[in-house]
Amino acid sequence: MKKWYSVKVIRTRMPLKKIQLQPPYLLFLGDVPDDGHAKTAHGMAYWRPQLCAGQMRLPGCPVDIGLPDLNVEETVAAGIRTAIIGIASTGGQLEAAWMPQLIALARAGINLASGMHSKLIDAADLVAAAKQGNATLIDIRVPPEDLPVSRGRKRSGKRVLTVGTDCAIGKKYTALALHREFENRGINVDFRATGQTGIMIAGEGIPIDAVVADFVSGAADVLSPDNDADHWDVIEGQGALLHPSYAGVSLGLLHGSQPDAVVLCHEVGRADLLGLEGIFVVPPLDQVIDIVLTSAKITNPNCIWAGISINTSSLDDTQRHSYLGDLENKYGLPCVDPVATGMAKIADFLLENVK
Amino acid sequence: MKKWYSVKVIRTRMPLKKIQLQPPYLLFLGDVPDDGHAKTAHGMAYWRPQLCAGQMRLPGCPVDIGLPDLNVEETVAAGIRTAIIGIASTGGQLEAAWMPQLIALARAGINLASGMHSKLIDAADLVAAAKQGNATLIDIRVPPEDLPVSRGRKRSGKRVLTVGTDCAIGKKYTALALHREFENRGINVDFRATGQTGIMIAGEGIPIDAVVADFVSGAADVLSPDNDADHWDVIEGQGALLHPSYAGVSLGLLHGSQPDAVVLCHEVGRADLLGLEGIFVVPPLDQVIDIVLTSAKITNPNCIWAGISINTSSLDDTQRHSYLGDLENKYGLPCVDPVATGMAKIADFLLENVK
Repeated sequence: MKKWYSVKVIRTRMPLKKIQLQPPYLLFLGDVPDDGHAKTAHGMAYWRPQLCAGQMRLPGCPVDIGLPDLNVEETVAAGIRTAIIGIASTGGQLEAAWMPQLIALARAGINLASGMHSKLIDAADLVAAAKQGNATLIDIRVPPEDLPVSRGRKRSGKRVLTVGTDCAIGKKYTALALHREFENRGINVDFRATGQTGIMIAGEGIPIDAVVADFVSGAADVLSPDNDADHWDVIEGQGALLHPSYAGVSLGLLHGSQPDAVVLCHEVGRADLLGLEGIFVVPPLDQVIDIVLTSAKITNPNCIWAGISINTSSLDDTQRHSYLGDLENKYGLPCVDPVATGMAKIADFLLENVK
Repeated sequence: MKKWYSVKVIRTRMPLKKIQLQPPYLLFLGDVPDDGHAKTAHGMAYWRPQLCAGQMRLPGCPVDIGLPDLNVEETVAAGIRTAIIGIASTGGQLEAAWMPQLIALARAGINLASGMHSKLIDAADLVAAAKQGNATLIDIRVPPEDLPVSRGRKRSGKRVLTVGTDCAIGKKYTALALHREFENRGINVDFRATGQTGIMIAGEGIPIDAVVADFVSGAADVLSPDNDADHWDVIEGQGALLHPSYAGVSLGLLHGSQPDAVVLCHEVGRADLLGLEGIFVVPPLDQVIDIVLTSAKITNPNCIWAGISINTSSLDDTQRHSYLGDLENKYGLPCVDPVATGMAKIADFLLENVK
């Protein structure tokens, strides 16, 4: 009789989803009500500033990326090739209010790229407009087919995963900043993107929250395959283990990533969980890290906590210095702001403590 | 500006997936190597014995449900209307070895029902055979479309969820036995099926492990909607919170189910996690219940542990009595075997302690 599991071996060298976006980019903001729901736009503008040439908003939209506001004609005149939907509604659906501008862009020959759950290619009006304008519709949030179930086998190489007290709290920024810090030191390192923005920035990855639930850990296996003993994968976290909407995604990613270390991400002053304001408060750091480490040790008993990465943009320099210092004293771990102070301290800690 | 979340409100009265299977049934066992991978066949034979008329196996298959072994001609002669694929490979794929018999059945006019991830309707040979034989192909593991993201809102009514130390360890049996016990007492109760076998038994449900990861908790919301204050939902658990292949599914289901109580399921003598033999051991009961309750309290701070339900089929009566008694002394909770002793003690405990 054949070996029972033979059809579902882990293909650790399975090619990841590669994407090709033609720059320069327009960042489409629609009617997004706050910066928390404009993660993709902010991420692209911060990590790929040289590729972003403008933004487009609906009347009354309060979010400003700091790029020139362009209409469709100005977008064409600026030589922009791709409009990136830089916002997310809960559930990742395309909104009817965005359609007139998106249709006009496609009709004018501007490619559209989206990381929403609902697909550009399923919107008949957009497909017709893109055909008319000879534009391409690019859906980022499509996972690879035939992902395996995770078997939990230990893989070679080193891994660090960013985890959060909440969604949209700095896990991607932290991972990208740590990746850049490692790169600057000449370390053998890859950034492993798990969300639509990270994938757009990196040019490849797996949209982990779009994977069928049974295969989330298996997708994480595929995302960070066996590697050289001195190679680092810096893996972008998703969701939050204590966020009741998305915790299953976070746990599957944590188990499959089998990280040697986790970096906890947080934002000063974040009181309520994203999307659940007035219902759920952000849990204390200790409670988050307890359940993260308990869960992480299932697939990597040696997993350590390598520090805290905090968005302190609401503080002035003196306040920030004092806040981070207090946290370092409390936990005995490096505490940084990935933008304001950089990731050097956490990089040092990782290199010293993960062997 | 419109309310941002308006497009994704929780539709608690969304109709669940209803299925129609024509009895009597043939249970297809293929080349399944052990009882653990023949959960569906065992479940159907135990909970719907009056509807199951035969079994079909490949040469060498060691699993025996205790029904007459039928070939295709005998299946037709017995008046069987539907062949149920009663087994599961890791990852839920249809296997090439099963195809000759399945094709012959469909060609002979026998409907096929499957709970695998890979779909009957995607197998061109099966589709052609079913067309030829005027048979119907029924894929159970298809979740409803447009599931919402969970918002974690507390719903009315009472809920109990079965959780496990491992996969395939009695969560469905326990839930069905508890549902029957409640029904026999005239309690207002529903069994909420989350897996393919449970759905086949109940005739409705949501295959939770086939839901896209972001929507698992939302699917659990939909599965057990608001109800009368004295109504019980007995929710079938999935996977295991400390099983590295599927824990994300278990956590999403736990958060969305917001149970008032959990019943821990275990099997005497289970040493290694299913599918991970020789790599991962089954964790201690205390460790499992700790992380289950910590996680459950995120969406229901009053969640209690209502007892342990154990498959003690490897023990004789004396051993069973002693084993369950020792556990009861250790934990101060009712400990039962859902088949051998029934669920009365746990039902009593739930009715007394969940108000």
